[in-house]
Amino acid sequence: MKKVQLSVFLPDSLLSETKDLKLKTSKIGIIGRALAVFNVNKIVIYEDTYGNSLGNINSDRNDPNRNNLDRNRSSFDGEFISKLLKYMDTPQYLRKSVFPIESDLKHVGILPPLRTPNHPTVENFELGQYRQGFTVKRNNKGTFVDIGIGKLAFCKEQLTVNKIFSFKVIKIAKEIIVTPDAPNDIYWGYEALYTQKTLKNSLELINPDLILITTRYGHEINSVFDDLKSKAINSKSVAILFGSPYNGISETVCESIKSSQSDVLVINTVPNQGTETVRTEEALISTLAILNIMLQ
Amino acid sequence: MKKVQLSVFLPDSLLSETKDLKLKTSKIGIIGRALAVFNVNKIVIYEDTYGNSLGNINSDRNDPNRNNLDRNRSSFDGEFISKLLKYMDTPQYLRKSVFPIESDLKHVGILPPLRTPNHPTVENFELGQYRQGFTVKRNNKGTFVDIGIGKLAFCKEQLTVNKIFSFKVIKIAKEIIVTPDAPNDIYWGYEALYTQKTLKNSLELINPDLILITTRYGHEINSVFDDLKSKAINSKSVAILFGSPYNGISETVCESIKSSQSDVLVINTVPNQGTETVRTEEALISTLAILNIMLQ
Repeated sequence: MKKVQLSVFLPDSLLSETKDLKLKTSKIGIIGRALAVFNVNKIVIYEDTYGNSLGNINSDRNDPNRNNLDRNRSSFDGEFISKLLKYMDTPQYLRKSVFPIESDLKHVGILPPLRTPNHPTVENFELGQYRQGFTVKRNNKGTFVDIGIGKLAFCKEQLTVNKIFSFKVIKIAKEIIVTPDAPNDIYWGYEALYTQKTLKNSLELINPDLILITTRYGHEINSVFDDLKSKAINSKSVAILFGSPYNGISETVCESIKSSQSDVLVINTVPNQGTETVRTEEALISTLAILNIMLQ
Repeated sequence: MKKVQLSVFLPDSLLSETKDLKLKTSKIGIIGRALAVFNVNKIVIYEDTYGNSLGNINSDRNDPNRNNLDRNRSSFDGEFISKLLKYMDTPQYLRKSVFPIESDLKHVGILPPLRTPNHPTVENFELGQYRQGFTVKRNNKGTFVDIGIGKLAFCKEQLTVNKIFSFKVIKIAKEIIVTPDAPNDIYWGYEALYTQKTLKNSLELINPDLILITTRYGHEINSVFDDLKSKAINSKSVAILFGSPYNGISETVCESIKSSQSDVLVINTVPNQGTETVRTEEALISTLAILNIMLQ
């Protein structure tokens, strides 16, 4: 089992190619699956700044409202992306408690299930099992928790209510007793956050010891395979950065990240591409698939 | 530039997880993109036989109509998958000529463009360019061809009409003259076919010298990386096989393919998966991404 913490950084402009909510939802579905298939621990949605994301698109750069309009649109998408990724990571039995019905969740029915170990069914409930639970109410003896088994479990600790925590089932009797605990040897889903900060500033929240910037102008990954592999294996935390669908990650941003203290590699994980462009979700799966075999 | 011919084999049961035509279309879109991004030359849809695809699903195996019903449904999907993949590979300017309006093409609007070199625009039309063209009519001097430039080009050969061929533009004057020709140094799209045969029998149509069977029960690809790499580089034709969404490729089928004359490797390209299952499109992109870096 690899111990490397994997974080993925995606821009809030990720969905700007389509206005169709169902297609946006479907794209997030592909991304959430990729994160889970490849044991990603953290997905960070950063703010794709004006110049970076929209510089190449025909538009009136002198329009004073333009900047704000774009920011608002992106910011909506940023919230939306992280919300839907959280939704996917939340066990089915807790979704209704955690996510109120909202119009942007209209198409969540098409999101593919992750079927990660943090999504147990009611049938496989057993002593010693880990389950995520939602804290429903509290009394002076402890907290009642919904762990998706048809009745509330009890935790003998005072926990904040209306929140998700991970628990271990320590007693199954008339009462089901759980204690806050999470497994460290199986994949337990990912954490999703929207930083509303630039890529560079978002990186500072993680402080990875290896940063992989993916761009078609980077080193072909096959030419740096062994170097990257040994660096990745010896890292505690690896961050993989993806740029905007239109412009990728600009050279200025690359240079500015390279000047930070971490080890930075700029790589092209899809050398000799047959298509003019590679979509973010395609680059994401490809990159994670290659890194995955390096980390075994 | 690699010279290896790549074929991908997918089952006609690929879409059996959903009945929604838009979602089926969207899944094919992901697959067509993956084939083009990674320069795949041929995509073969094979018939997923009853026992292989549906053996594990709750159903009445004694129902005498069951087998035929499943075959019919699959067969529809097989035709549909290959038709939509062909649609994606066809340059936009020829789609209306080649594909009559049919109800199963209802959602083709959501298919992402491939933007491969065989999809040139009208703007980049120039002498010496290769373009795919549709043979519209013929006279005793040759054939009129639609190459998507607003007027018909002329080819001084008698070609079958109502078909797509590749041409080279050899004269731009009052008349545009083209000659049948295709480039051999750039990616020129893929060929899609539905064989209506089993996997084993479909393989005989290609006769690859290296066969990669992908299944989670195969060798972890990292453990056979160098072996596979040298085999792939030294092959003229590599076939990559994917099984049904439910059962993968059965051991019986594996053994039967292994007993054929080609070099056969059974590999797991997504070792240590975080999710209970890996979807065909996820396995496809992952496998092609890894093979792609081996072939550079």
